[in-house]
Amino acid sequence: MTDTDHLRRDVREAVAALRERAPLVHCITAAVSMPLVADGLLAAGARPMMTETQAESPHIVTGADALLVNVGTLSEQGARAIPPTVAAAREAGVPWVLDPAAVGRAPVRTPLAQGLLAEAPAVVRANPSETLVLAGQGAGGRGADSVVDTTDAAQAGADLAREHGTVVAVSGASDVITDGEYTCHLHNGDILLTQITGAGCLLGGLCAAYTSLVSPLVAALAATAHLTVAADLALPEAKGPGSFRIALLDALATVTAVDVAERMTLT
Amino acid sequence: MTDTDHLRRDVREAVAALRERAPLVHCITAAVSMPLVADGLLAAGARPMMTETQAESPHIVTGADALLVNVGTLSEQGARAIPPTVAAAREAGVPWVLDPAAVGRAPVRTPLAQGLLAEAPAVVRANPSETLVLAGQGAGGRGADSVVDTTDAAQAGADLAREHGTVVAVSGASDVITDGEYTCHLHNGDILLTQITGAGCLLGGLCAAYTSLVSPLVAALAATAHLTVAADLALPEAKGPGSFRIALLDALATVTAVDVAERMTLT
Amino acid sequence: MTDTDHLRRDVREAVAALRERAPLVHCITAAVSMPLVADGLLAAGARPMMTETQAESPHIVTGADALLVNVGTLSEQGARAIPPTVAAAREAGVPWVLDPAAVGRAPVRTPLAQGLLAEAPAVVRANPSETLVLAGQGAGGRGADSVVDTTDAAQAGADLAREHGTVVAVSGASDVITDGEYTCHLHNGDILLTQITGAGCLLGGLCAAYTSLVSPLVAALAATAHLTVAADLALPEAKGPGSFRIALLDALATVTAVDVAERMTLT
Repeated sequence: MTDTDHLRRDVREAVAALRERAPLVHCITAAVSMPLVADGLLAAGARPMMTETQAESPHIVTGADALLVNVGTLSEQGARAIPPTVAAAREAGVPWVLDPAAVGRAPVRTPLAQGLLAEAPAVVRANPSETLVLAGQGAGGRGADSVVDTTDAAQAGADLAREHGTVVAVSGASDVITDGEYTCHLHNGDILLTQITGAGCLLGGLCAAYTSLVSPLVAALAATAHLTVAADLALPEAKGPGSFRIALLDALATVTAVDVAERMTLT
Repeated sequence: MTDTDHLRRDVREAVAALRERAPLVHCITAAVSMPLVADGLLAAGARPMMTETQAESPHIVTGADALLVNVGTLSEQGARAIPPTVAAAREAGVPWVLDPAAVGRAPVRTPLAQGLLAEAPAVVRANPSETLVLAGQGAGGRGADSVVDTTDAAQAGADLAREHGTVVAVSGASDVITDGEYTCHLHNGDILLTQITGAGCLLGGLCAAYTSLVSPLVAALAATAHLTVAADLALPEAKGPGSFRIALLDALATVTAVDVAERMTLT
Repeated sequence: MTDTDHLRRDVREAVAALRERAPLVHCITAAVSMPLVADGLLAAGARPMMTETQAESPHIVTGADALLVNVGTLSEQGARAIPPTVAAAREAGVPWVLDPAAVGRAPVRTPLAQGLLAEAPAVVRANPSETLVLAGQGAGGRGADSVVDTTDAAQAGADLAREHGTVVAVSGASDVITDGEYTCHLHNGDILLTQITGAGCLLGGLCAAYTSLVSPLVAALAATAHLTVAADLALPEAKGPGSFRIALLDALATVTAVDVAERMTLT
């Protein structure tokens, strides 16, 4: 089998395992995208859990299978809860994913996300401009969207992955997944994904769900393929961003493990 | 008329009254489910109002027709606001509903919900594992979902209702509504309801809306029938959890009072 | 050209400019409506950004094209962040829109919104009862809905606009837009808009997006026309409030600038 054949098999098995084991994903995520992250995780086959207070989050996370930390729309209580929650997750052996949403200009979340790179995230899920910020090579986009081409950020992602011993998933017109040594590109999905608030946040949540089941590299690949192949299936149902979002949730639930693996366009 | 005939008539009248009087429901609820609770209440015929700060919530609740207190995704400000809001509601004669979402492991919401049982909630809306926790018979599920069979929790619900002089609505594959003396089972709804984040929270909100119009037992029954019959009507429109949610909102608005009463499968 | 012809041309150009320039709109808005405001802005052609902490919001707003301040479901951190964020926006020349959601009974947001009138909002977007409260002529509705007829509030809106040198958009069965001298009425949209939580909040967000491109009067008119003409186009697709919301998001994205201008019913 070629590398690609191996990866297709790994992705197929990962999606099947997600549906069978329904991992519990503790999410600290942007208020604006909470409903999509929760609904998308449920649709895909995982179980979401949302708590972001310092009094409860570090305690609850020890019973979860994985943790998502997304610093978008960061609340005051979330900023306080993230460090002890990540520490508790590591102590309990719960893998975690960092989504450095909208780092750059923001004076609290930017150093917070940079500091969290030292806390051994299994996967970092970012858009191109956020990847450059974390790699110390850019000042960030304006807002949550990205102003850098994906391929320009692939090198920064690989550098970041090598430096911090993590896997970096850079989302964009095409998606890059890299552990610093091996880098692959996925070409599924549609521009409509950028017209749905929280699609990137949901991808971070899916990465977290998959890290509880497979290696970080396969987790990032399976999460990205699951979301973007579902987007491909949703596209013919969509008359605009509203109906696309609904069809995407349907497809996240109905796409088969075989379909995710076979339809992903991998280079 | 049999008991069941009486209950069907009561439910039919309750649904008609909801549409006619559009009660104002003050909601303190999980951030992740706020949009569904608000949209579902509006669709069903009630009017939602969301405020969870200590400075405003106890003041505003006195102008509401009912109060929902849901401890899911409990924020720091929500935890502070709940006790004085419940006290203000009781003082003003505003009926209130307790939804002990995800009690069990969580160290703040669990004792908070247990303590609130002494504050005379009209209805307690819970899933099976939450019911067992409140009845002192279990340690809770992992996350917001339930790991106990509904029938196993029916006895715990009846015990809880008797002990605290309340009505308990236990949601599950079938729904149990009990005041400790009289217990009935509803068999509508679909497994897809568990794939929509906040469907249980919305049921709590509907219970609150109906408590402003009819007795707690009829309120819990009407709320459960309204939601689950709407789910039955939505099912043929659904291609997955995304489109099911949309069809459910449509059906909450369009189902008639007669349909809710006639289609409910009551034992 | 008549006044109306001029306004249609201005609206057509404004909608075209929105799609071309995709302004970045910083939103402090009700938690319950965050997802709809964000998705609606994205669909319409703008880019949303949600941050409401005192530590980040005043800093981030200086990179935005416009600011929305909506006091609905006001959080403790939001209440602290709004004054310095508005001050920073004014200092940086970023136009801002005030949405006094649910003022009246609420003891924190009511004086906050009244005080903000002195901070030169480009547009005030309100429902009739909120308009009366701000004009000192009423005690407010119960909850977020309105209990006053739009035409009754048109005079209060004109008074408010003159007194504070702003444009007031009063939403209702028909919509009133006034700068105190010139007043126009828009008759598009549908009652279903009142069954979607956050439709008014989204209109506030659209007003903000347009203030970055055109004069406040044209901004309020273009925003109202964009939303209500989209609602007209969505109506045939809707089976209830759930599917209406989805069709509305689709139509916000797909309606052309020419359609918005031609279909608006202006008197």
